[in-house]
Amino acid sequence: MTNFYTEAYAEPTKEMREAGTYAPVGNSLIGDDPSTKALLERAADFLGKEAALFMSSGTMCNEVAVRAHTRPGQEVICEKSCHIINFECGGPAAISGAMIHSIEGDRGMFTADQLSEAIRSGNPYLPQTGLVTVEQTANMAGGAIWPLEQLRKVANTAKQANIPTHMDGARLINAVVASGHPASEMTKGYDSVYMDFCKALNCPVGAVLAGSKEFIQEAWRIRQMIGGGIRRTGMLAAMANYALDHHVDRINEDHQLAQYIGERVGNIKGVASVEPVETNIVIIDFDPAGPAAPEIVAKLKENNVLVGAFGKYRIRVVTFMGRTLKDGEILCSELDKVLNG
Amino acid sequence: MTNFYTEAYAEPTKEMREAGTYAPVGNSLIGDDPSTKALLERAADFLGKEAALFMSSGTMCNEVAVRAHTRPGQEVICEKSCHIINFECGGPAAISGAMIHSIEGDRGMFTADQLSEAIRSGNPYLPQTGLVTVEQTANMAGGAIWPLEQLRKVANTAKQANIPTHMDGARLINAVVASGHPASEMTKGYDSVYMDFCKALNCPVGAVLAGSKEFIQEAWRIRQMIGGGIRRTGMLAAMANYALDHHVDRINEDHQLAQYIGERVGNIKGVASVEPVETNIVIIDFDPAGPAAPEIVAKLKENNVLVGAFGKYRIRVVTFMGRTLKDGEILCSELDKVLNG
Amino acid sequence: MTNFYTEAYAEPTKEMREAGTYAPVGNSLIGDDPSTKALLERAADFLGKEAALFMSSGTMCNEVAVRAHTRPGQEVICEKSCHIINFECGGPAAISGAMIHSIEGDRGMFTADQLSEAIRSGNPYLPQTGLVTVEQTANMAGGAIWPLEQLRKVANTAKQANIPTHMDGARLINAVVASGHPASEMTKGYDSVYMDFCKALNCPVGAVLAGSKEFIQEAWRIRQMIGGGIRRTGMLAAMANYALDHHVDRINEDHQLAQYIGERVGNIKGVASVEPVETNIVIIDFDPAGPAAPEIVAKLKENNVLVGAFGKYRIRVVTFMGRTLKDGEILCSELDKVLNG
Amino acid sequence: MTNFYTEAYAEPTKEMREAGTYAPVGNSLIGDDPSTKALLERAADFLGKEAALFMSSGTMCNEVAVRAHTRPGQEVICEKSCHIINFECGGPAAISGAMIHSIEGDRGMFTADQLSEAIRSGNPYLPQTGLVTVEQTANMAGGAIWPLEQLRKVANTAKQANIPTHMDGARLINAVVASGHPASEMTKGYDSVYMDFCKALNCPVGAVLAGSKEFIQEAWRIRQMIGGGIRRTGMLAAMANYALDHHVDRINEDHQLAQYIGERVGNIKGVASVEPVETNIVIIDFDPAGPAAPEIVAKLKENNVLVGAFGKYRIRVVTFMGRTLKDGEILCSELDKVLNG
Repeated sequence: MTNFYTEAYAEPTKEMREAGTYAPVGNSLIGDDPSTKALLERAADFLGKEAALFMSSGTMCNEVAVRAHTRPGQEVICEKSCHIINFECGGPAAISGAMIHSIEGDRGMFTADQLSEAIRSGNPYLPQTGLVTVEQTANMAGGAIWPLEQLRKVANTAKQANIPTHMDGARLINAVVASGHPASEMTKGYDSVYMDFCKALNCPVGAVLAGSKEFIQEAWRIRQMIGGGIRRTGMLAAMANYALDHHVDRINEDHQLAQYIGERVGNIKGVASVEPVETNIVIIDFDPAGPAAPEIVAKLKENNVLVGAFGKYRIRVVTFMGRTLKDGEILCSELDKVLNG
Repeated sequence: MTNFYTEAYAEPTKEMREAGTYAPVGNSLIGDDPSTKALLERAADFLGKEAALFMSSGTMCNEVAVRAHTRPGQEVICEKSCHIINFECGGPAAISGAMIHSIEGDRGMFTADQLSEAIRSGNPYLPQTGLVTVEQTANMAGGAIWPLEQLRKVANTAKQANIPTHMDGARLINAVVASGHPASEMTKGYDSVYMDFCKALNCPVGAVLAGSKEFIQEAWRIRQMIGGGIRRTGMLAAMANYALDHHVDRINEDHQLAQYIGERVGNIKGVASVEPVETNIVIIDFDPAGPAAPEIVAKLKENNVLVGAFGKYRIRVVTFMGRTLKDGEILCSELDKVLNG
Repeated sequence: MTNFYTEAYAEPTKEMREAGTYAPVGNSLIGDDPSTKALLERAADFLGKEAALFMSSGTMCNEVAVRAHTRPGQEVICEKSCHIINFECGGPAAISGAMIHSIEGDRGMFTADQLSEAIRSGNPYLPQTGLVTVEQTANMAGGAIWPLEQLRKVANTAKQANIPTHMDGARLINAVVASGHPASEMTKGYDSVYMDFCKALNCPVGAVLAGSKEFIQEAWRIRQMIGGGIRRTGMLAAMANYALDHHVDRINEDHQLAQYIGERVGNIKGVASVEPVETNIVIIDFDPAGPAAPEIVAKLKENNVLVGAFGKYRIRVVTFMGRTLKDGEILCSELDKVLNG
Repeated sequence: MTNFYTEAYAEPTKEMREAGTYAPVGNSLIGDDPSTKALLERAADFLGKEAALFMSSGTMCNEVAVRAHTRPGQEVICEKSCHIINFECGGPAAISGAMIHSIEGDRGMFTADQLSEAIRSGNPYLPQTGLVTVEQTANMAGGAIWPLEQLRKVANTAKQANIPTHMDGARLINAVVASGHPASEMTKGYDSVYMDFCKALNCPVGAVLAGSKEFIQEAWRIRQMIGGGIRRTGMLAAMANYALDHHVDRINEDHQLAQYIGERVGNIKGVASVEPVETNIVIIDFDPAGPAAPEIVAKLKENNVLVGAFGKYRIRVVTFMGRTLKDGEILCSELDKVLNG
């Protein structure tokens, strides 16, 4: 199966697996585990924050952050297509009692001006704004990278209104590799950020949430409250350390492959347009005169190619470790066959 | 003071007050109070529902309804400008754990097609849609009346997706009087609805939530949980009964006055436009070249005229019991003075 | 019907009703109503607090206070039989996410030592203690009065552990009248307290929550969030003011009647014991050899006497305005008949 | 360090680690991973339930189960010393809005009669009982085993009242090994149960929640909502499968060691009493005339022996994989030294 569905299908490499096998395990809940300690220090440093916490998923990082930053009844401002409001089963309201205030941005990104307008103030009947979140890269918008300057302005606008900020960094590492800007530059001014080890970095389990010491202490308690604390993360952390050592540079290959796919499919008849490819995601829109996305996806699957339908006439292609140029060629030629027989 | 700010400033009449004075009081919590019983029966009948419950405010009716219809993590679909998401201090998320899914409608109203698109289904990572609400009349949009047909289509679309529906009827009575359609026609297909006795009906305290017997039983418990149960509502209910007997027809006068104001201010220089006046609310937009709304409101206040700022260049005028044609004239001439010296 | 069931059955007097009839009404939500303003100032003063807020019920005061003092996941320490955990439909957890930590006290009261043991500290896996509540008088324990010294010690113990305190003063006024201690002495050291106007004070609607200005500001928002804000409370507040002027001293009569009943029923064959009568509640335990409480209550009702079953062999008798010595005699002789034919 | 503090300090064996190293990994979130699938089938079968779900901790299993079984405001009935109310940071109220209704049992276990009394019914002001939980074995009571008959009666009593039941099976496997009763016998009548792979079974990560298919479907969503879903659990599940194959029988050794320790420390001067040792936990109470528990624990630690203080004069000793008879002897002789010089 040629699989471009999601990074969740990446296979950890033999070397990564073996990096975990004999890792010592201490009680990671109380900071008493060497690989976990090393990982958290590296991740905090990488993300430019004081402290960090290991979690079993990026969704957990988001949900814990929302809970730590807000009080029930406050609003979370985020872009309409973001993961937090669309793919976390309603967690922000269910776990944190947070109201959702969505901004319709451009390619998953909103401006500081849009934020200014969305922030509530004065009238005591209004929900209070409790948190602003950004998603780097913007997944649903095709892995678009928030420009440094826009990130700064958004953070400053929030700061001036005394509102905390959180960055969903599920694919932050892709933005870092593609743009060349250090993660710590991108996260400057954000009170919390998480990075995922299960996407481009290819680990089987793990994400790290970072912020101030005080924030991480509160996050520790919330993680415990939802049962997210794991006592022995040593082996998992060892694999994440391996990923930081060995898997960062290769992310360029994913981006090149995505570029290649984006260019080739743009020339296929029946493809209406392709979103600009900035990282490892290709969003393809089809001519509504042709078959709809679910049908296209089903036919590709019959021919052993896996991609995801993202709308009536839209599909998403994700590149990640293990996908080769050859795989990209197969995808393109199979898609051509589906559309043009 | 010539007051067009909100119906909350209406004075109960001498007759209404006296209607309450000697009303018998039983234990209204257990249905053992004659005026309350009579009111709830009348209101349920008026609203075309099986059963009804007395509450101390319309906001409480909304919050209790959201809680009764949903489970934490589900989404409430509503129009972007509605009361539930903007003026209830974040209650839906704080009290019910409900996610907000707002639709940008036209004049506070959305279509069945927009609803169809907003309803979530299939993908288990998505929050589930738990409730659809409509606001009759649409306050922020200038008291616009949802047409019967649109109400029906929206209700049917929700029903087909197995999703309950709630009508915020803060000004339903205005829609009824203005359109001539019975309330029970407007509420057909809606699982719950509330009507307010404190706006056009002029009571000091009270709103009634209506729905099926089972729904009202659940609402009873939720009302109790938030301390909304009042043991002796007899005097308040007697005033509400008085309002149903004596204050419904006169609502036409409020609408005529609003019409008059709408027409006159439309001709004032510096007024950019006036939203169509359908009931008792007049939304006036000013030319951005002139003074902003807060300044206009402040100057009017200096001259003893009270209205509300509703945006940078927008004010809201509300007509209600006790406002005369003379008051309307004062408002218009003072506004003219503020704008044109 | 000779009614000793609950103060909820008291009839407002003609004078009290008339005190409300022509009261001016302003917008009480924004502090713009004369009777409400006067009432809140008097009540704050009476309770020894900076500020106060009008609510439609005592349960609402409790629920709002719990929410204002705690964060989700924290524990509320209270006596096992108290109103907050037993008669508010689970509000503390549902509205505030508060864990219940109950202490089994003596007659509804716990000691500072018991509190010390109950307070959590250190271990980060434990829920944190977020609030301590006391109930003055202790209803389920027969209207027992917390002694001043015990109240102080409990408050001090909480203060030393940096934990806020709330007094459920549903029948605080009874404790004040019976003990001669001013309310402000009893509430010293408590961060919030509410007093009810619907019990011994005989109003149809109303309770007042008091605390610091900052606390009341937060309480205002929470009240709004649950729809507990009422725009025009003038008439209700005027009745409450009347009660403070005219109904406080007469509470002694309720206590004398309760004393009389307690003494007389203690001598009836089949009565095992009577809890010490300190205020307006008489708790009567029956000999398990005889009929059970529900049967006794049913038979008394057949003979037009209303009391409440409070356990298998226990009933509660409550005295309140309008119950005469004659009524007390009827109760006793009817109870004698039920037990001894 | 001779470590008897908690099973969290167990080291996975070389064989267990290697069992995970090369396990295939699929998308476990959608049931598409072979080791996870095998584990869940085995665990469901072992626990006598239809379906099962992998979680990263036992606390998560408990919190998800409470949420799946209850609605906000309902009560969870559990024994006073249980994990759910004492060591999960207030999760039941924070995550599920659940009221805590604790029963003071005997050695962590309550009877069906106590349950009957605790179940709420009738009065609509009461919180409704929403769930009954038992903890097998009862940790704080020294690993006591709920007898089969008592488990049944409790389950039946709940069932008759139409209330769901959940078993916290953190150490269920110890009860199974010690008693010889199959797990599926112990869980009969319980709507959900979890078993932990990180305690006696020695895995680094993992617990499994089991119940009906419908329950597990709901649990899936709640797990997702808190970010507890892990996409690639293959390696972790492979280790858990290894544990089921190789680590169950050896649990007897832990129990024998606990027995040995219990007997020996019972004879040490200064030890007031030892709770009956039924599984792998030894609870030791000291003579209050001697040093307090924290001091004893500190001194043992100085001498390289780790145990936990569980009260002013009480410590807990836990046996688990890797503790030898020699370790037990060291513990006893060091304890003797601390107490008797």
